[in-house]
Amino acid sequence: MEKIRVTVWNEFRHEKMEDSVKSVYPDGIHKVIADFLESDGFLVRTAVLDDDHCGITDELLENTDVLIWWGHMAHHEVPDHIAAKVRDAVLKGMGMVFLHSGHHSKPFRLLMGTTCNLSWREHGDRERLWVVDPSHPIAKGIDRYVNIPHEETYAEPFDIPEPEKLVFIGWYDGGEVFRSGCCYHRGNGNIFYFQPGHETFPTYKIPEIQTIIKNAVRWAAPVYRVNELVCPNIEKLTD
Amino acid sequence: MEKIRVTVWNEFRHEKMEDSVKSVYPDGIHKVIADFLESDGFLVRTAVLDDDHCGITDELLENTDVLIWWGHMAHHEVPDHIAAKVRDAVLKGMGMVFLHSGHHSKPFRLLMGTTCNLSWREHGDRERLWVVDPSHPIAKGIDRYVNIPHEETYAEPFDIPEPEKLVFIGWYDGGEVFRSGCCYHRGNGNIFYFQPGHETFPTYKIPEIQTIIKNAVRWAAPVYRVNELVCPNIEKLTD
Amino acid sequence: MEKIRVTVWNEFRHEKMEDSVKSVYPDGIHKVIADFLESDGFLVRTAVLDDDHCGITDELLENTDVLIWWGHMAHHEVPDHIAAKVRDAVLKGMGMVFLHSGHHSKPFRLLMGTTCNLSWREHGDRERLWVVDPSHPIAKGIDRYVNIPHEETYAEPFDIPEPEKLVFIGWYDGGEVFRSGCCYHRGNGNIFYFQPGHETFPTYKIPEIQTIIKNAVRWAAPVYRVNELVCPNIEKLTD
Amino acid sequence: MEKIRVTVWNEFRHEKMEDSVKSVYPDGIHKVIADFLESDGFLVRTAVLDDDHCGITDELLENTDVLIWWGHMAHHEVPDHIAAKVRDAVLKGMGMVFLHSGHHSKPFRLLMGTTCNLSWREHGDRERLWVVDPSHPIAKGIDRYVNIPHEETYAEPFDIPEPEKLVFIGWYDGGEVFRSGCCYHRGNGNIFYFQPGHETFPTYKIPEIQTIIKNAVRWAAPVYRVNELVCPNIEKLTD
Repeated sequence: MEKIRVTVWNEFRHEKMEDSVKSVYPDGIHKVIADFLESDGFLVRTAVLDDDHCGITDELLENTDVLIWWGHMAHHEVPDHIAAKVRDAVLKGMGMVFLHSGHHSKPFRLLMGTTCNLSWREHGDRERLWVVDPSHPIAKGIDRYVNIPHEETYAEPFDIPEPEKLVFIGWYDGGEVFRSGCCYHRGNGNIFYFQPGHETFPTYKIPEIQTIIKNAVRWAAPVYRVNELVCPNIEKLTD
Repeated sequence: MEKIRVTVWNEFRHEKMEDSVKSVYPDGIHKVIADFLESDGFLVRTAVLDDDHCGITDELLENTDVLIWWGHMAHHEVPDHIAAKVRDAVLKGMGMVFLHSGHHSKPFRLLMGTTCNLSWREHGDRERLWVVDPSHPIAKGIDRYVNIPHEETYAEPFDIPEPEKLVFIGWYDGGEVFRSGCCYHRGNGNIFYFQPGHETFPTYKIPEIQTIIKNAVRWAAPVYRVNELVCPNIEKLTD
Repeated sequence: MEKIRVTVWNEFRHEKMEDSVKSVYPDGIHKVIADFLESDGFLVRTAVLDDDHCGITDELLENTDVLIWWGHMAHHEVPDHIAAKVRDAVLKGMGMVFLHSGHHSKPFRLLMGTTCNLSWREHGDRERLWVVDPSHPIAKGIDRYVNIPHEETYAEPFDIPEPEKLVFIGWYDGGEVFRSGCCYHRGNGNIFYFQPGHETFPTYKIPEIQTIIKNAVRWAAPVYRVNELVCPNIEKLTD
Repeated sequence: MEKIRVTVWNEFRHEKMEDSVKSVYPDGIHKVIADFLESDGFLVRTAVLDDDHCGITDELLENTDVLIWWGHMAHHEVPDHIAAKVRDAVLKGMGMVFLHSGHHSKPFRLLMGTTCNLSWREHGDRERLWVVDPSHPIAKGIDRYVNIPHEETYAEPFDIPEPEKLVFIGWYDGGEVFRSGCCYHRGNGNIFYFQPGHETFPTYKIPEIQTIIKNAVRWAAPVYRVNELVCPNIEKLTD
């Protein structure tokens, strides 16, 4: 079986600008994610916002099976035409995993068609991430729940289309709940939204969180890809 | 507009056998529910397990727009043929609202096709019932969440088909979450499962819970009903 | 009960430029649709592409419960910011019915997140529009199928998110099938896509098609509307 | 990778009683299906209604990854407790593919919760089976549609829960349409319903139909299986 080609895209700003984040992810969130994927046999590249073309080229998208996206403070710096390019790559068949504040990234909003708004607060709440569907491939190897010592609190209502499959629900000790793991299929591509991963907490170093992201990449890998998105004028059937 | 004809079916055993329940619902859970529905303009009947035919007759089902079901300790006393009759009434178009431990009632399990198992514990946890979709008719008039001082704790995984629309998620201060308000359409009928309502707590006296049940009845009322469930041998089309 | 306020938006170009269309809809497609809605008690306005601001103003959207949209050759003349305004009105709660080639309109594509591509050919095929769910409010009063003497053929695959409820499937005597009636909920708004209505055929004069559109308007009317789309920073819960 | 263990269950009555069927499937429908699966590397067993225990034992179910089911005239001869055993095996994680008139088999009806009624007629219509979602694993390797020279006509409405994913729609030259390939997840198990395969026509000898069934088996194979279906009383969380 061919290796799955993953690109981890990270905004990579907080890590350079804020000491509290730098101390957790000195080489960037993308580096931590790339490392645990690589050690599991995926073929991994990384790209960041400050790369040329925001790190997103046609070549990259064509050679990426699954794109992971972490962004937050600079969503608006991704130009519309690049966000549309990412969306189109998904519609052509590329898989995509949006992490945490990626809920408000341009590609996710374009793919969902909704605002993707939610309610939020930063109090370092503890999160207990519950498995809703233990038989889903993305929950493979995960027990009833995952304990996350501190997370940013995300609360319902989360303005997304009804998930085609809801895999995780987050519980916060401050009193909120959130649909934390949501599956979609758009065009020819699979999309997974996964809530954990605030930049000031070492969430991506938690083994179960890494397992979930690896599972999500395997789940999102394409079955079928097309080169062009077309609306063909067809001939009258003759067979 | 015609009044919606509601039947409130209650097992009505706990209220007779346990003082802790009798003190909360001296005339039965069905009486409390019937009263708030009646005062809102619905045409209400009640039926209980110890009635003839378990309270379920053809006449009743044919003249019921929405059936509300509360059961717990005596699910097995509802004979299979009566459970099948209830299921068939839903498939013909009757709406149905299953409350709390009704998740394990025969009609609900027949309609879902799954075990409807969940995890549970009785510690009198506080529940905060969150609105996931504020634009759903069943959430009309409800703020971000409803506080329920004490409830039995229900926890995921809840073995149900993916809800067609998830309206509420329950948060418990003991640490669990639960998909507490779930919409389905089966055959010609609408089905709403609603988790709150343990017999030892006065949950059905909470105004917001009453609002939700009234909304659910309006939402579940039939658009279209058939008299028979058939699999017809059709003629070749000639038009 | 308040009357439902409907706006019928039409591109209104074919009717002015092509005799074959003018002869079918001399005053425009919007006029025919507005008339049958008005005579059924809806409060109807019309708007066309060549009006100021493409016929779409904030005032109009705020005072429209359900917007019907017919467009084809001039989708690109609706500026992006106006398409986004329409999308946002839906997300705030306005209902929307997209007709026929409206599948490629900017607002529909924005709301779906996909290309909304399909296969098509113009051979004046006969269509038989089948009811998949007779108990859906939009199919109320419709028999097993509706005969449409001539239609443009639309064929699968239709690149849309899996419909939340599929109400109609079209059969064409040339050999194709199409998911012709599809329901969605996005943000706070209901969306119905309905395939029939090529400009050269008098489809909107067929009584059953009118019934379906009237049903769709009633179904899409809002339950809940918001004035702003926000992603609030919330306080720690204290109750 | 371990081989997928498939059991092909067939009623195997028509083939023994009717010459028109015997001439098409002299050794039974199950033999033809088992053969093409075996030659593709699956580990295949067969079972038929007239075997002991209707061919269904605990041992068989525990050692079957995916069960294929063809039945028609003798659905009622499968006892309820055996149908329930099959349902429970699916809920524990076994995959299941229901073929053609298996829509009315007891296990399918139990899993769906609906009547699974449809309209039907036998005129040897030609069917064109359209791919609705070319990116679905079950459609892998299939072009826009598959031509089936003769089939029994199945028509909407088909009384099933809204498919979680609709993969195929059937078009019949007599004028009907049908949702011919439908995916569900129930409990821990995957379920695929596939319409083609009337006993008097050699449908299962068509290469594309064989490809679809092989794809369906791979898609339905379990991710996660449990030994018991339980509704546990859980302890208060302490971590």
